[in-house]
Amino acid sequence: MRDLAGRPDLCAINTATLGHSAPIGAVIEAVAHQGFGGIAPWRRDLEGEDVAAVARRIRDAGLAVSGYCRSSAFPAATPEAARAAVEENRRALRDAATLGARCFVLVAGGLPPGSRDLAAARGQLRDGVGALLEEARQLGVTLALEPLHPVYAADRSCLCTLGEALDLCDALDPEARGGLGVAADVYHLWWDAALPRELRRAARHDRIAAFHVCDWLVPTRDVLLDRGMMGDGVIDIRGIRAAVEATGYDGLVEVEIFSAQDWWRRPMEETLATCAARLGSVC
Amino acid sequence: MRDLAGRPDLCAINTATLGHSAPIGAVIEAVAHQGFGGIAPWRRDLEGEDVAAVARRIRDAGLAVSGYCRSSAFPAATPEAARAAVEENRRALRDAATLGARCFVLVAGGLPPGSRDLAAARGQLRDGVGALLEEARQLGVTLALEPLHPVYAADRSCLCTLGEALDLCDALDPEARGGLGVAADVYHLWWDAALPRELRRAARHDRIAAFHVCDWLVPTRDVLLDRGMMGDGVIDIRGIRAAVEATGYDGLVEVEIFSAQDWWRRPMEETLATCAARLGSVC
Repeated sequence: MRDLAGRPDLCAINTATLGHSAPIGAVIEAVAHQGFGGIAPWRRDLEGEDVAAVARRIRDAGLAVSGYCRSSAFPAATPEAARAAVEENRRALRDAATLGARCFVLVAGGLPPGSRDLAAARGQLRDGVGALLEEARQLGVTLALEPLHPVYAADRSCLCTLGEALDLCDALDPEARGGLGVAADVYHLWWDAALPRELRRAARHDRIAAFHVCDWLVPTRDVLLDRGMMGDGVIDIRGIRAAVEATGYDGLVEVEIFSAQDWWRRPMEETLATCAARLGSVC
Repeated sequence: MRDLAGRPDLCAINTATLGHSAPIGAVIEAVAHQGFGGIAPWRRDLEGEDVAAVARRIRDAGLAVSGYCRSSAFPAATPEAARAAVEENRRALRDAATLGARCFVLVAGGLPPGSRDLAAARGQLRDGVGALLEEARQLGVTLALEPLHPVYAADRSCLCTLGEALDLCDALDPEARGGLGVAADVYHLWWDAALPRELRRAARHDRIAAFHVCDWLVPTRDVLLDRGMMGDGVIDIRGIRAAVEATGYDGLVEVEIFSAQDWWRRPMEETLATCAARLGSVC
């Protein structure tokens, strides 16, 4: 297991951690200035920007792109809407390639309006990811299925566990040809008694494409926007990272914190310095 | 699958649905008046009451006791505290027997203060339940492990899925001698892609001791106290009930709704009448 103390170069910052309030250029400079090895931008950061120019700026700053966030919802109320979502995600996948991203993070989407059929939503997810896989391979960008915490099953992600994500990988990529994996985020997975077993399973096909850290606060005031800085909550982050790295994962450790009431209100430099310190001391 | 239309006698009311605001005697009368077949009281309803007298009152009203809610947390910061929790739960188990309850509902408890060790918490749960099992068998009250939604893993229940609950049943009762099962609540389990498989597994040893219904609202304003009336949310309750009854479960369908801002503010009779109607129309 790697020692992260004094090694922000082994770590990346997901721009959501900074609240999307500063322009992407300033965020790139600040992340690089703190010594991080990578950045994971969101589509919203690039609105109105030239993607190739942003890609150059990231490269020139010496940063890798640990991931590009994130897909639109795959499940939709009509087959036409589902196809449109796939095409929108295809355009974002191409931007991920332009950015040189290690992976394109897929957040499944929840139930379409009026639906109570989770199995159907999961079927649409499977079909949509399957439609993107060959192009992802050609582009050299891994599709990273990110199971979200089951609290988001209705409105954000019908994909709720690492086991379920690996089942989908096995179904769509049975020979492990690559181009498909998972984004493992401690916030979404820490509660799962099956996590050690499923991480061992992930290891067999080298399925971990990204690893995200933050913390689960007690109490959590808002399940979407009250995530904690590493060390401020109850997740055994170091234990999970040990298990993730035992799968062979040697990519960047990415910090993704949604914190509307706390960290998003602080100066960007303070948040970044705290991330660097906590990565070294508690992760 | 049973038809619940016009059959409140196949259903029970968990007193939490009524907000614990009326005295237990009045609640018993109102539940019986509406034609329900059973009631599931909480320990807090019986504080300061003579348990045997309440038991008589329930019997005289023609109601069964579908369950008694609920255990104190098993995980604790010290071995002494964990032993004390077991003894407290033993006293509650004896009250469950006095009430003639079908089961004593076990809510595991979350992480003790200062702990990040979910595996240790689960070990304390296992030890504690094991310590109660023989007496539960002698009393004829099934210990019903209730996995709670993973959103409560930190503070309420280290037992998060039906699969995990069945693993614990198998570990403590490998020969299926009885006295140990699960309480399956749609609110806690609906998101789980493994649910159909785990329900089939539950069927093999007749492990379903209780079945609870309510609904998951979108949006959910509060993950503890904003549960919905059946039909007002996104859970496929009928589909889950069909799978539960396919396991052989023929016990009461129990309504348990925590709704501080809505149903708890309405007259008890309105809530009960709505439960009866929705059980028949959407469950």
